Amino acid sequence: MTDDGLKAARDRIDRLDEQLQALIGERAGLAQEIARIKADIDGEAGDCYRPAREAEVLRAVAARNRGPLSDETVVRLMREVMSACLALESPLKVAYLGPEGTYTQAAVYKHFGHSVTAVPLAAIDEIFREVEAGNADYGVVPVENSTEGVVSHTLDQLVGSRLSIVGEVALAVHHHLLSHASDLSEVKRVVSHAQSLAQCRKWLDAKLPSVMREAVASNGEAARMVRDEPAAAAIAGRAASELYELPILCANIEDEPNNTTRFLVLGQQSVPATGEDMTSILVSIHNRPGMLHRLLAPAADAGVDLSRIESRPSRRQAWDYNFFIDLEGHVAEDRVRQVIDRIEAEAAHLKILGSYPRAVL
Amino acid sequence: MTDDGLKAARDRIDRLDEQLQALIGERAGLAQEIARIKADIDGEAGDCYRPAREAEVLRAVAARNRGPLSDETVVRLMREVMSACLALESPLKVAYLGPEGTYTQAAVYKHFGHSVTAVPLAAIDEIFREVEAGNADYGVVPVENSTEGVVSHTLDQLVGSRLSIVGEVALAVHHHLLSHASDLSEVKRVVSHAQSLAQCRKWLDAKLPSVMREAVASNGEAARMVRDEPAAAAIAGRAASELYELPILCANIEDEPNNTTRFLVLGQQSVPATGEDMTSILVSIHNRPGMLHRLLAPAADAGVDLSRIESRPSRRQAWDYNFFIDLEGHVAEDRVRQVIDRIEAEAAHLKILGSYPRAVL
Repeated sequence: MTDDGLKAARDRIDRLDEQLQALIGERAGLAQEIARIKADIDGEAGDCYRPAREAEVLRAVAARNRGPLSDETVVRLMREVMSACLALESPLKVAYLGPEGTYTQAAVYKHFGHSVTAVPLAAIDEIFREVEAGNADYGVVPVENSTEGVVSHTLDQLVGSRLSIVGEVALAVHHHLLSHASDLSEVKRVVSHAQSLAQCRKWLDAKLPSVMREAVASNGEAARMVRDEPAAAAIAGRAASELYELPILCANIEDEPNNTTRFLVLGQQSVPATGEDMTSILVSIHNRPGMLHRLLAPAADAGVDLSRIESRPSRRQAWDYNFFIDLEGHVAEDRVRQVIDRIEAEAAHLKILGSYPRAVL
Repeated sequence: MTDDGLKAARDRIDRLDEQLQALIGERAGLAQEIARIKADIDGEAGDCYRPAREAEVLRAVAARNRGPLSDETVVRLMREVMSACLALESPLKVAYLGPEGTYTQAAVYKHFGHSVTAVPLAAIDEIFREVEAGNADYGVVPVENSTEGVVSHTLDQLVGSRLSIVGEVALAVHHHLLSHASDLSEVKRVVSHAQSLAQCRKWLDAKLPSVMREAVASNGEAARMVRDEPAAAAIAGRAASELYELPILCANIEDEPNNTTRFLVLGQQSVPATGEDMTSILVSIHNRPGMLHRLLAPAADAGVDLSRIESRPSRRQAWDYNFFIDLEGHVAEDRVRQVIDRIEAEAAHLKILGSYPRAVL
């Protein structure tokens, strides 16, 4: 009876797989057709990757999802299908801050799918250079970790570059305290990667103030070290907890509850509005009393949210500052355009770094 | 007119995406149903990953493919769908030889899709230990590079382990000579990673005998170094050629035309026959004249192909040898079973390391 049920379900999966495969093949054929039509219009192989359309399609995928797969998983699968179809013409070349196996590489694949040629480079300025030279179609660089702050090399490069920000990627990072100890009071030693220790510093100061902290090469290594030592705890993710059967003594101990790492996608094009966009601008001002307040007033007046503001000393002159400001909305929207115009009137210099779709999941 | 065609094709893609998504959701629901039925039968959460069925399904996918996507791409996409559905119950834990970003990690994702918890470990014996202890469901270890030979640590661990080989993964690796030189005679220096230099040694000895070889950290680094130096060449892959706009002066210069790296998947179960299988056995013999020939005779007599034979000195006793032999076929097949029985009669000891599906693409 149940064996029959098993066979019936498996047969249905087989038929479904055939349909799925047929649809994927058909979709790839349509992608080729679009490339041909665009080539007719433009007289050359067109730029088939369109960040705005991709964001819109994937948002629609998430909105339609009724489970049982998570929104994130369904979006990832559909992105892989889109990525493979797009690569039929010629795979996108994406330069990123290497080495392989880093979060930045994960961000590349999260944003573009796996059907791209992802090339690790050793430094942020090299990525800008390769994209500017047209050797790579896009670049992906880290810009912000919500606990450790901004990646200043990226901001500095944005000042002089003619590239635009064409997208953003967000990766969530959670930390847990793993230990066989039955209570926090039993923990005499905490082991983790230095960055994870830093990202949980406040929590550690509050809960385990007198406990020794030890930095090791990776969070996985930390988990392995403490599994036979009940007086020790590791800070690591869920995967390490599962692998080493280390109970989660305290979950989500990162100081910043929304501990995400944010990346920018750099390119040569400008991206049309999708309805859920961000605009990044660079503003240079001479530092005078009240200047920052005057700079921010236009956005407040217009009800345009500023999601981030970051100051960096300018390299041109002492007491000159560059401000990196993220506004919600797209420069093609009047209210955003007006805010930018008003800021520009106050500033020594203003540069629009890009308007781009907000990260999809 | 063509703009209308563009819009029509895009609308069709939108409708296709909706259908695709609906099918993926339905497939995930069926996977859950299968898990429930299996739990009813077994009285607990069943082991839903079945290497033999997965290989059969993916072979059928490749056989059905009519383009325009490559077999490899379609198989990869379908594998990701299967991987995501399987992970709905509980994601597989796969331990592999790290660090992240290595070929072994790529082999994990190629074999299992991305919906697994992949855990990098520092040494091959740790991977065996974690799978034996049940902390990881599967392990992935390199076993053979067709130019550089076998990974002896893996063979040595197989001797004493009670794990079975439940699968194999093959990754193709191609090397090209990249240079702005217009002719080989202009090349005065060849730069690459030491392993790539080794994998092209014969070709270099024949074509560039007196040219200096320089080992650097990675093939990508090598390509970057030579792009402004026409008297130099790098050995690297196609991605580096594209990124640095370095012409391929000579393609596929690896000494072994089928330069693949092979990995084994280790697990606790035994895998039923799929019709395209391999069987790996370990044979210990006392080294006597003519012994190896007697060992191989049964397979030759029965017409069973030996795809690989590898000898390692035994650790037990001087002059004792272990032979690792790969036979085509599955122990459940009579002719394979008979060959193994005949070999066993000649040997001091024989251990079946596993029968498993051949790598799908």
